[in-house]
Amino acid sequence: MIRVGIVGYGNVGRGAESALLQSEDMILTGIYTRRDPETMQPMGKTKVYPLSSLLEGAAEADVLLLCGGSATDLPVQTPELAQRYCVVDTFDTHARIPEHFENVDRAAKAGKTAAIISTGWDPGLFSLMRLLGAAILPKGTGDTFWGPGVSQGHSDAVRRIEGVADARQYTIPVQRTVNAVRRGESGFTAREKHTREVYVVLKEGADPQKVAREIITMPNYFDEYDTTVHFISREEMAAEHGNMPHGGFVIRSGGLGSEGQYPSLMEFKLELASNPMFTGAVMAAFGRACYRLHQQGRTGCFTVLDVPLGLLSPLSSEELRSKLV
Amino acid sequence: MIRVGIVGYGNVGRGAESALLQSEDMILTGIYTRRDPETMQPMGKTKVYPLSSLLEGAAEADVLLLCGGSATDLPVQTPELAQRYCVVDTFDTHARIPEHFENVDRAAKAGKTAAIISTGWDPGLFSLMRLLGAAILPKGTGDTFWGPGVSQGHSDAVRRIEGVADARQYTIPVQRTVNAVRRGESGFTAREKHTREVYVVLKEGADPQKVAREIITMPNYFDEYDTTVHFISREEMAAEHGNMPHGGFVIRSGGLGSEGQYPSLMEFKLELASNPMFTGAVMAAFGRACYRLHQQGRTGCFTVLDVPLGLLSPLSSEELRSKLV
Repeated sequence: MIRVGIVGYGNVGRGAESALLQSEDMILTGIYTRRDPETMQPMGKTKVYPLSSLLEGAAEADVLLLCGGSATDLPVQTPELAQRYCVVDTFDTHARIPEHFENVDRAAKAGKTAAIISTGWDPGLFSLMRLLGAAILPKGTGDTFWGPGVSQGHSDAVRRIEGVADARQYTIPVQRTVNAVRRGESGFTAREKHTREVYVVLKEGADPQKVAREIITMPNYFDEYDTTVHFISREEMAAEHGNMPHGGFVIRSGGLGSEGQYPSLMEFKLELASNPMFTGAVMAAFGRACYRLHQQGRTGCFTVLDVPLGLLSPLSSEELRSKLV
Repeated sequence: MIRVGIVGYGNVGRGAESALLQSEDMILTGIYTRRDPETMQPMGKTKVYPLSSLLEGAAEADVLLLCGGSATDLPVQTPELAQRYCVVDTFDTHARIPEHFENVDRAAKAGKTAAIISTGWDPGLFSLMRLLGAAILPKGTGDTFWGPGVSQGHSDAVRRIEGVADARQYTIPVQRTVNAVRRGESGFTAREKHTREVYVVLKEGADPQKVAREIITMPNYFDEYDTTVHFISREEMAAEHGNMPHGGFVIRSGGLGSEGQYPSLMEFKLELASNPMFTGAVMAAFGRACYRLHQQGRTGCFTVLDVPLGLLSPLSSEELRSKLV
């Protein structure tokens, strides 16, 4: 059994926990949190420890799944913990991946551990699909669409507006642009690719027009998109918008043959009732791969593109060749 | 530049040639054929050599793409050539992959070369997708559908019937079963998953009823399916059925969360105007990976599940991390 620890027990941590409960070759040996361990209620009977115990190197874990946030948690935690443990994270600030990789690589090499960063589905599975598309159809075009689904970052941004009690933001792909990308068209703007739908619960006395204007004109988050704002009650928010569905697709289209006369379309799609549950499931599989890489004597930092996918499976290479290839 | 040779110049060989012409880091240095080299007309100015010259070890190639058939060519050629060259094949007899792997592994280890077998799209890309689905949603269900597209094997089987001058067989997924698999249903029969449409040109004097009956009742190929037979003219065959479109999809569906209450759907789809052109393109990308594995000092036989996907790209790991992950 591969002994796995979960670091950070929010939505993604619970997703990782739930995935480990479905796995027959991995066992959850501990949950590590910055909050008061007494207040945590794991699904199984897993013990909850203070995060600090990890830095003392006290954990009985072959690999840790780091379920913190990319803004402030992971840039510190992943290199710090990689000095002592094999670790997997979901670092998703695309622009800072090279820097994060270097930091984690240095720590993991020093600690003779293995680390896989930026797992999950984007980055993660979608990175794998972009790679396949570009490698097989190098003269093609393609694009990634997200949704329909809840964007945590955009929801948070709306919640910070004065007068907003709660908010949920859905990102929705524009179907006619999706179809155009399938046909090999490219060069679409942010506005042409996705629309945004925002559901807002107002604080008492807040001015809906003012809030709507602030949302729609918010730089980077909303100003480049067509955004619709809906005001709803606290009850409706709880009843209709409690889950965190998400998904999206990666499309690659290209012509093969001497004149590019044979259109080829590759498409990968995810439809997820719960974004954090699926993210946790992807992390768990990469946790297995991380453990196995380390067992093979590999150390340092890896991305999903560096990992042979067979290592994600509990089956041996022989079993995979006879059952699955 | 990676120097690549193509062995076998049929439809897939031409697909590989066309893919290499689109690639900026690989150069086609020779085409090797059992037929008379004088009669071959490559798209570029590539020289055509007799296959026997390879066995003398005379080829200036870093890697060979073996484009012969799985029935009789590859079981012999891949191990034989792996003793001297890095090789990639598309061996697709699923049941014999373990045996083929062992033969090629022995030859490649003896020759200190690297070999990747069973590339293409199924086995190949679809194997990767089945692996991802099973590893991430272990308690889920899933299935692979093929088509709409031309099955070479089934077309050949019909051509062998007395009275048949030419034939083309299309495999068509049954949409309502596809939708059921997306919803997580499983256990469908061959008949429920695909229908078969056969277009036949009869020889003069042949009895259409007799031919149709022979097709529909043919064991393994047709008896387990609902098959429709259409008789057409030689002209219609040439005009309407000259290409070899194909495609299909791999679906994995599973519930996450403590009670499996969060449905998750992963789906990979291919729509290909030309099956052999796309197969050749996949081979070319794995040719690059094979060369790189060998450069890293790796020898022996690999399947697509053993290859880090980053090796398929001409970009370096650093470039991939900053541009694509």
